[in-house]
Amino acid sequence: MQEIKGGITSAKGFWAAHTAAEIKYKGRDDMALIVSKTPCVCAGMFTSNVVKAAPVKWDMEIVKKGKPVCAIVANSGIANACTGEYGMEICAMEAEFTADQLGVYADEVLVASTGVIGMQMDEEKLKAGIEKLAVDLKDTPEAGTGAEKAIMTTDTRPKEIAVKLEIGGCEVTIGGMCKGSGMIHPNLCTMLAFISTDANISAKLLDKALKEAAEDTFNMISVDGDTSTNDTLLVLANGLAGNKTIRSTGKEYDAFCEGLKYVCRYLAKQMAGDGEGATALFMCEVTGADTVKNARILAKSVICSSLTKAMIFGHDCNFGRVLCALGYSGVKFDPDNVTLSLKSAAGEIRIFENGAPLEYSEEEAGKILSEKEVSAIVDMHMGKASATAYGCDLSYDYVKINADYRS
Amino acid sequence: MQEIKGGITSAKGFWAAHTAAEIKYKGRDDMALIVSKTPCVCAGMFTSNVVKAAPVKWDMEIVKKGKPVCAIVANSGIANACTGEYGMEICAMEAEFTADQLGVYADEVLVASTGVIGMQMDEEKLKAGIEKLAVDLKDTPEAGTGAEKAIMTTDTRPKEIAVKLEIGGCEVTIGGMCKGSGMIHPNLCTMLAFISTDANISAKLLDKALKEAAEDTFNMISVDGDTSTNDTLLVLANGLAGNKTIRSTGKEYDAFCEGLKYVCRYLAKQMAGDGEGATALFMCEVTGADTVKNARILAKSVICSSLTKAMIFGHDCNFGRVLCALGYSGVKFDPDNVTLSLKSAAGEIRIFENGAPLEYSEEEAGKILSEKEVSAIVDMHMGKASATAYGCDLSYDYVKINADYRS
Repeated sequence: MQEIKGGITSAKGFWAAHTAAEIKYKGRDDMALIVSKTPCVCAGMFTSNVVKAAPVKWDMEIVKKGKPVCAIVANSGIANACTGEYGMEICAMEAEFTADQLGVYADEVLVASTGVIGMQMDEEKLKAGIEKLAVDLKDTPEAGTGAEKAIMTTDTRPKEIAVKLEIGGCEVTIGGMCKGSGMIHPNLCTMLAFISTDANISAKLLDKALKEAAEDTFNMISVDGDTSTNDTLLVLANGLAGNKTIRSTGKEYDAFCEGLKYVCRYLAKQMAGDGEGATALFMCEVTGADTVKNARILAKSVICSSLTKAMIFGHDCNFGRVLCALGYSGVKFDPDNVTLSLKSAAGEIRIFENGAPLEYSEEEAGKILSEKEVSAIVDMHMGKASATAYGCDLSYDYVKINADYRS
Repeated sequence: MQEIKGGITSAKGFWAAHTAAEIKYKGRDDMALIVSKTPCVCAGMFTSNVVKAAPVKWDMEIVKKGKPVCAIVANSGIANACTGEYGMEICAMEAEFTADQLGVYADEVLVASTGVIGMQMDEEKLKAGIEKLAVDLKDTPEAGTGAEKAIMTTDTRPKEIAVKLEIGGCEVTIGGMCKGSGMIHPNLCTMLAFISTDANISAKLLDKALKEAAEDTFNMISVDGDTSTNDTLLVLANGLAGNKTIRSTGKEYDAFCEGLKYVCRYLAKQMAGDGEGATALFMCEVTGADTVKNARILAKSVICSSLTKAMIFGHDCNFGRVLCALGYSGVKFDPDNVTLSLKSAAGEIRIFENGAPLEYSEEEAGKILSEKEVSAIVDMHMGKASATAYGCDLSYDYVKINADYRS
């Protein structure tokens, strides 16, 4: 497997377009369209929030049907969540109008929205946007990046990746894009993340591969502990790579999974590191846990704590907060058996073992905590299970961004 | 029942003292001693965090034994958590040395600490502090306020209250003090909160009354979602009011409970409103829930969300975040049946019903959100259960305080 330059348009037969429709933002792109020239097998994961946005409900229906899909139409600015009957009508209109432009059926079009909750969208603006998108589809990397930029909200940089791998003698490409960067605490799913591949794979195996990949990647990130109403993770596979259809687990399925997980992990880490107001990616690697489930719970508890996050922002080795967060995670353990180290490009130091703090250099600790990527390494000494969670620090800018997000 | 001026020394036979022992802070009081002149029945609730501070372990043992207690010795600056064997030795020494000074047994002395985790305390400083405290005990309101101030960390104001009530023809007083104001997300218990009363009540009924009172008060607050290693809630009853011992539920127990809950609710609200960096007390009142348990979960989810908290700080009516937080709480409900209003001293407006936003004045909403106490009122329309949770907004100062707390 090899990482290549590119994103959502890298796999064979995928096009993208972007435009400014003034849904809410002025003077920037806010609509994107992703289209496969042949029908795709599709898998999706969606927010576990009881309050689901209209596009989430629309997509869940389509994914449940299991029929081939052709396109994703997405917008930023307004989330189309908490918008009642009218929100669902808008959503159906978006799919129908897009389908008309592309010459496909409405139930072959997925819809995604991100932005302010509880605000209605304007039908005419959406239609005008879709008309422009449909005539501007291109399979270039620039078109992919443009589509990615159009769905950003408080993100500071686009997040995309592509990998090439070989399956059954055929070159297969997997490309993806996603957006953050607030209200991010995926549970069974994540924010808007779209992945395209020309792999030939059955719907059942694609679904299995996506769930497995999400478990260790998107489901292990958090920016602020808030599980959004709009979280959507979609993967479209159009089969144009020409490999023999992957219908069962085995070598070829594993190769595909490796590629898919690589793409998911990259996008998830990018999302965490570009969390609202973040100055650093903050990771927690838990090893020696009794079960993988517990390892995940422990790692996530550490990166979700406001106090550990503020410690990273302040470059202050107030490590007791890491132990405190492990302690209230809900996992039972003996604190006397836990060892804790801090690690970054600047080095690694052990801080705590046998239930008490070790002697360490505060200066060295400060240097380690000042890097752009910082890890808390925790060994529970209970078993062999491990997990890594991805988060970010808590800064003044997080508060600033969210105190006046709508204005 | 009547609220009176005072605090921990208001009930008959309770003394307090405070001193500067330079445990960690310089130039301010950091040790407090609370003593009853006669042995007390005691009830306590402690942190649910697996990582428990040494004083928590000490106090849990004492409360479990069920023997009478005489005193609480407390310090701020260092939490004596994650301090291993040495931390436990320090704790035993504190109790023994205090007991020597007071002429009681070590297992009649409760210990409490708050401050930095993972830092060891100095035995000599503690001893010097205890010697000074023991000769300075007074039953004045000033002594109570001084003791309260000595245990503050990032709190901006002391939190104390006293009430008088009549039980069986006798005047009974309940007084209390507590400190916040970060790492506050009690689970089965809360931060340092001490309550004294001269009521005559059995240990069993005192324990029952405390658990009932905490459920609706201390367990319904959150500042930052972090459950501390040191949370301790203690109530001491010395019986000097002279009422016939309360040994069973009934009119007299109910009267005591009403007073105790009043004291707990006042202290809990004070703790939430004085959360680190807070500019406002943020409450969520949930009504019409199917069960009290679900009402509590829903209300807490709303006040714990970083995004709703930032909305209060920004005085920005981004109400979709309230619905989002209800939605990911884990409680099942139909969003179309929920109504949401915002309320404060500036008025009340309905914002959302039948699954969609209502028309409202942004100016009016901004005014309501600019008050010092703001409530989100949620009616689930599912049943008759209700609950209120208490939190605070998320400000730049929360980040500032916690990015350089140790320095």
